[in-house]
Amino acid sequence: MTDSVLTAVDASFDPYTGAERGGVDHTSPAEVEGMLALAVRAGSVLAATSPATRESWLSAVAGALLEHQEELAVLADEETGLGLPRLRAELAGTARSTLFYASVAVEGSYLGASSDLVSESISLARWNIPVGPVTVFGASNFPFGFGVFGHDVASALSAACPVIVKAHPAHPRLSVRIAGIVRETLLSAGAPAGTYDLVVGFDAGLQLVDSPAIKTIAFTGSERGGMALRDRAAVRGVPVFAEMGTVNPAFVTAAAVADSAGTEAIAAGYVGSFTLGAGQFCTKPGLIFAPAGSGMFDAVARHVAEVPAAPLLTAGIAVRFASGTAELAAAAGDSAASAALVGEGYAAAAQVFRVAIADLIPGSRLLEECFGPVALVCEYDDGAAALDALAGLQGSLAASVFTGGSTDPETAGILARLLPKVGRVALNAWPTGVANTWSQQHGGPWPATSRPEATSVGAGALSRFVQPVALQNADPRTLPVFFAPENPWHIPRRIDGVLTLPVPSAVPLSASKDLS
Amino acid sequence: MTDSVLTAVDASFDPYTGAERGGVDHTSPAEVEGMLALAVRAGSVLAATSPATRESWLSAVAGALLEHQEELAVLADEETGLGLPRLRAELAGTARSTLFYASVAVEGSYLGASSDLVSESISLARWNIPVGPVTVFGASNFPFGFGVFGHDVASALSAACPVIVKAHPAHPRLSVRIAGIVRETLLSAGAPAGTYDLVVGFDAGLQLVDSPAIKTIAFTGSERGGMALRDRAAVRGVPVFAEMGTVNPAFVTAAAVADSAGTEAIAAGYVGSFTLGAGQFCTKPGLIFAPAGSGMFDAVARHVAEVPAAPLLTAGIAVRFASGTAELAAAAGDSAASAALVGEGYAAAAQVFRVAIADLIPGSRLLEECFGPVALVCEYDDGAAALDALAGLQGSLAASVFTGGSTDPETAGILARLLPKVGRVALNAWPTGVANTWSQQHGGPWPATSRPEATSVGAGALSRFVQPVALQNADPRTLPVFFAPENPWHIPRRIDGVLTLPVPSAVPLSASKDLS
Repeated sequence: MTDSVLTAVDASFDPYTGAERGGVDHTSPAEVEGMLALAVRAGSVLAATSPATRESWLSAVAGALLEHQEELAVLADEETGLGLPRLRAELAGTARSTLFYASVAVEGSYLGASSDLVSESISLARWNIPVGPVTVFGASNFPFGFGVFGHDVASALSAACPVIVKAHPAHPRLSVRIAGIVRETLLSAGAPAGTYDLVVGFDAGLQLVDSPAIKTIAFTGSERGGMALRDRAAVRGVPVFAEMGTVNPAFVTAAAVADSAGTEAIAAGYVGSFTLGAGQFCTKPGLIFAPAGSGMFDAVARHVAEVPAAPLLTAGIAVRFASGTAELAAAAGDSAASAALVGEGYAAAAQVFRVAIADLIPGSRLLEECFGPVALVCEYDDGAAALDALAGLQGSLAASVFTGGSTDPETAGILARLLPKVGRVALNAWPTGVANTWSQQHGGPWPATSRPEATSVGAGALSRFVQPVALQNADPRTLPVFFAPENPWHIPRRIDGVLTLPVPSAVPLSASKDLS
Repeated sequence: MTDSVLTAVDASFDPYTGAERGGVDHTSPAEVEGMLALAVRAGSVLAATSPATRESWLSAVAGALLEHQEELAVLADEETGLGLPRLRAELAGTARSTLFYASVAVEGSYLGASSDLVSESISLARWNIPVGPVTVFGASNFPFGFGVFGHDVASALSAACPVIVKAHPAHPRLSVRIAGIVRETLLSAGAPAGTYDLVVGFDAGLQLVDSPAIKTIAFTGSERGGMALRDRAAVRGVPVFAEMGTVNPAFVTAAAVADSAGTEAIAAGYVGSFTLGAGQFCTKPGLIFAPAGSGMFDAVARHVAEVPAAPLLTAGIAVRFASGTAELAAAAGDSAASAALVGEGYAAAAQVFRVAIADLIPGSRLLEECFGPVALVCEYDDGAAALDALAGLQGSLAASVFTGGSTDPETAGILARLLPKVGRVALNAWPTGVANTWSQQHGGPWPATSRPEATSVGAGALSRFVQPVALQNADPRTLPVFFAPENPWHIPRRIDGVLTLPVPSAVPLSASKDLS
């Protein structure tokens, strides 16, 4: 490859108006090669660092992002139209998540340290090493949380992997600005050059995917994009952790809508959840099953009529929303659907369609995600048939079940059918909003993700970026420092099959504040 | 699909003579459908069992296999030619491994139980559920260890997944006999019908791969076979854990061959290791780097000349061994290579070829596995160049490093280069022979496996057959029993981010024996 004379550009567009507002040059092949070489070198350095060292780097990045909160929120709003309050909160959440992933590394379970004296002549030690340089393809819909420094990047860095991210074309100027802050902060904090970098442009992204230097790829976006990446990377056997869009179903039991207040609260919540961020959440609930006679469709439609139009992220998403809602209307047999795009820029109007169980058959358009503020209501006569339809859906990231409370006899049966198909099930709550904790699971069976065992939010997110190795008959001095008898990193370890915990250390200052 | 009038057959051949000795009918499409339906039903039952219950089933199977040890070893020898001592030992090891996997399930870490009170309005519980029915494609070279009831099957059953195995055409009669014993024993022990079954025939195997009932596939065999399975299953997003053949390199430092006794011991060990089981081990060392002047090639060649010819497993393997060794001879520039196949049946003579570092370039035949008793010796002048060549090899299951002892200054540098490319590194030991313990890693980066994060031997083997789920805002009574406050299964759990261990239970009888 050679650099072309005319440099291609990712143009920046304002979703409120559709107007172009500058842009960012694509990264040249030579520049990408330079980044890859630096990342390989950084990989060796990072592999030898302690989690506490990386925590200090990531803490500096979290601080720097918060220092630039207002500037970044304004820039993000110019390119996404998601609104300042949401964007400020998303950035604050990203800073918290960064600290969380670093703390997960410090806790040390992710290292999987284990050693056995098998016999007089055989000893084995097993632990997880970082895979090396990682490429992250962020999403359009969370410019901070799943952008050029979001969950994937922070968890990979926590696991000691350098990261080269590809800027999403929906927010090129923001991507470049964030990357500049992150790169500079990491260097100042002592991280080696090559720990983090950014490329712009489709070809630069492909160059990363095809490079033998890149050992793992994380992606958040459409099923089409994720599957194309998976298949391209399969040629050289590189893992692709793709988190893709799904129809996240909700199920309402008879007891949950025993009175009209129940229906009203669920309808209001449903509309609030599926129009949040203009319906551009990967956990957006897209299909609700409610008992016939509950009046669910009418209640949802009333609330939908009150939702103001909101801008979609890009012109492409707006076009696909228009065609997607037309397809849904046709599949649902709704000939009177209103206009999907209204007013200036990429503004879209919320939509809802009524569907019959008989239409929810494999291959139907109704069972595919439509990105944007649209959802389906299925009122069922026969609870068993509805449950069969629910269990027959493709894998989803999340689902909701609304019950009449802890004594609702339907709950156990619904959960037994749902859990094998879904990463997370929320009871009497909506799936949008993903808490970042040790017990979070943001994943699910294909096509929710390409890796049903993985999660892209929560403590498990680090596991995507390590691989186990075993060393047989090693002199103890050859093993990583965390195997030393004094357990210098204070991590859980398995010794001869028995899980052992570190001796609790003194209460850290940051935690003791709350005790005073 | 309909049953054909003429049933196809997997014929059984005697590797010592090449003579056909009966055969086994292929499973019909209708029979496979019946098995799949039973497996789905068994999956629901198994998911609700405790690890201790499954341990009792698996313990019964281990006992039944040992009861039939002599019968099965004789039958295996008739179809594999691996010899009775090895086959008796392999079966005994399989019985031990079965108990080990069951004990790993009982220990409970594999469940990944974790719960968090995130806020006043959000609680999360996360744990691993069994994926459901699994299909296992066993290998030809370990009729017990990786056959129709080996590591993959025992670890899947321990993790509460029903298994339908495909018989390897190299040992159809043995497969059917083992399956009969296992099926009957499981039923007698109380396991539901459909917990375990066997199909025979290529088409029956494909029917399993394509069935929506099968949630995960485990395979041990050639790279070609593993990749074909991976790509076929990718259409419906099903994980394939393929463990494939690799060139497992060995590296000898200068200090390790400081005297001729060092060279002699390593040469003898190398030949013993790469001709073990007629070189039909996936961990067979296939390429050794030794310092020029050590006399390694000559010493290895002397030992090779003394190895008696031994039968390969199948006619197909014998043919590929003949063509493979001819290709290696050509690539190594050895025009005087001796005959690969000698005597009766599938008997093969051990071979060794001298190669130059300059020939070890990507794409060379020298860097691909050749199944059978053949290996390469590379004598290096320049240690740094040899290390570069070593680090440039494809991913391998295992590697060996021979050093001058714990003070050898080369050790650390070699390990740093090797570990990212290899599942297990043995120091001053050969890679053949894989202890089944908590700290084992039998896997490695592609093309060693399709899943660098996985292992098919050791405690981690269960992880291939579970997937995480999170339940948000669940009534505690809705959660699995192992979340109950009294920790009824005595498993490690993470509560609000803190790993907690079960209260130690009384010393079990089987362990207390050793104390008397």
